[in-house]
Amino acid sequence: MAQITLGVDLGGTKIQVVAVAARRVVGQSRHPTPRTDAAGVIAEIVSAAHEAASAAGASPSDVRAIGIGTPGTVDPATGHVSGSSNVPGFMTDVALGPSVSQAFGGVPVTVDNDVRAASMGEFRRGAGRPYRDLLGVFVGTGVGGGLILGGRLRRGRGSAGEIGHTVVKNGGRECPCGRRGCLEAYAGRLSIERAARRKQADGADTILFEIMERKGRDRVTSSVVADALEKGDELTHSLVDQAVDALGVALANVQNTLDMEAIIVGGGLGDRLGPHFVHRVAEAVLPHLRVPEHPPAMLSTELGDLSGAVGAAVVAGG
Amino acid sequence: MAQITLGVDLGGTKIQVVAVAARRVVGQSRHPTPRTDAAGVIAEIVSAAHEAASAAGASPSDVRAIGIGTPGTVDPATGHVSGSSNVPGFMTDVALGPSVSQAFGGVPVTVDNDVRAASMGEFRRGAGRPYRDLLGVFVGTGVGGGLILGGRLRRGRGSAGEIGHTVVKNGGRECPCGRRGCLEAYAGRLSIERAARRKQADGADTILFEIMERKGRDRVTSSVVADALEKGDELTHSLVDQAVDALGVALANVQNTLDMEAIIVGGGLGDRLGPHFVHRVAEAVLPHLRVPEHPPAMLSTELGDLSGAVGAAVVAGG
Repeated sequence: MAQITLGVDLGGTKIQVVAVAARRVVGQSRHPTPRTDAAGVIAEIVSAAHEAASAAGASPSDVRAIGIGTPGTVDPATGHVSGSSNVPGFMTDVALGPSVSQAFGGVPVTVDNDVRAASMGEFRRGAGRPYRDLLGVFVGTGVGGGLILGGRLRRGRGSAGEIGHTVVKNGGRECPCGRRGCLEAYAGRLSIERAARRKQADGADTILFEIMERKGRDRVTSSVVADALEKGDELTHSLVDQAVDALGVALANVQNTLDMEAIIVGGGLGDRLGPHFVHRVAEAVLPHLRVPEHPPAMLSTELGDLSGAVGAAVVAGG
Repeated sequence: MAQITLGVDLGGTKIQVVAVAARRVVGQSRHPTPRTDAAGVIAEIVSAAHEAASAAGASPSDVRAIGIGTPGTVDPATGHVSGSSNVPGFMTDVALGPSVSQAFGGVPVTVDNDVRAASMGEFRRGAGRPYRDLLGVFVGTGVGGGLILGGRLRRGRGSAGEIGHTVVKNGGRECPCGRRGCLEAYAGRLSIERAARRKQADGADTILFEIMERKGRDRVTSSVVADALEKGDELTHSLVDQAVDALGVALANVQNTLDMEAIIVGGGLGDRLGPHFVHRVAEAVLPHLRVPEHPPAMLSTELGDLSGAVGAAVVAGG
């Protein structure tokens, strides 16, 4: 077996791993994220990584490097993570890179932010391949962004790409981050769910939560939103309209500032609502562009929910 | 005399030229911009350039290159400009670079956008020297921006840096560009003047226009605004407060997206209102930052109204 690189996408609900050889996905595995503690999460990552290697017909000694994309604040130099409320035990400092490396016999482990990794995945192996400049916007529970300029990931001093927390309405809707009027406060799945609950409490009529219960979910997932839209639920339509408008303002602001070649709209909600949603966002961007005759290409993801894992492998050189 | 580089800042009211040798300004000249046509403007640029060279003790044959910063849409490859309503004859295509080169015996002429040139001036020779990443925001009649990332000017596909036309209030105040709610609609001098006239027509009490007339001006210049603030004119204070708020939102959005090291606030209004104004803008940025504990350095210009001319010389290699 040739040498492989493993890419790990650590999320609040699942751990997705791919094995990459010669720039192709040759094996994968997916485990639920344990609800225990950091040690439990790390053990599960190691187990899922072994499984993906094995699915690729590789032994642990064939693994040349591992890349991990994780939520939270990452120090790529040390592989430490903190500040993620979605992964058990990851609010405080976790030696994620060193721990996984040790469990894998000292193989090099690269750790980066999950959204940056996903952007790199689409840039190198997905819809972003034809471009040198790419903004990846991942609309899921929150809204994350990854910025690639001239072929390189823009990190700034560590916090570049926080497009989800650019202001689309000064003093507007409260955001999960505690500020007001961020893009995420209108376009993030959690914000949409919260706004729907408030509207329902205020007497608005909606079948959104019935759909959620019928699907056996305890939260308004992207597919719950998609179903409610399909069934013509007015409240859901109006909330998604607001999300589209907010994305229009925020992405136009990035475009006016950076004059990007292309913008990819992915993430749970972006992927689930698909090209029609991306097309609507593209239309919402146009009226705010300084140079409307030269808009960026507006794209859906090609790798779908593998963007993050493939990107993590790419960041690790795979 | 050693070889010199000339930097030209072409504006709607004046043509500022500097002569640069060994990275220092060794001569300069300033002419009013003729109100005739493109040929008249070009002749005046050539005359001012000769005067600056002569002030540096140099002859025309000592001039190794000329850089020109101009408003409008620039094609740096050909040196052509168009789309500037402020310079007579510059709405349609003008062969600015080739014409000046010809009049100067074939010396190489580099043409770039005025605000980008000014940003490069402050980056290499002014307040931006300690940084690799710098956003220059020039608040004058309009609001322009120049973005330097990793030591290099960001051009995108030609239109990067249009921070003045990022949206700070969706559907808000009309902007000179024809759209609504742009930063420039709140922070640009022309927009402030227009808003003040509207408010006065609606019955607001203000001494702004009396000050303008007393100073013998036919428009609300930066120094008219500064005087009105000093005299406690309430309308002017409220309009400048709105400008500060708008700058807070727009600059925070850039910061959340790019995680810059430093932001310079210059231009006629920025320079005239000075460090106190920049400090107020810095305070207005903070509440919108995703990482408020790590804000960018917020700076005034060092070169003042020479930023543009010095930057034009820098862009030409001087």
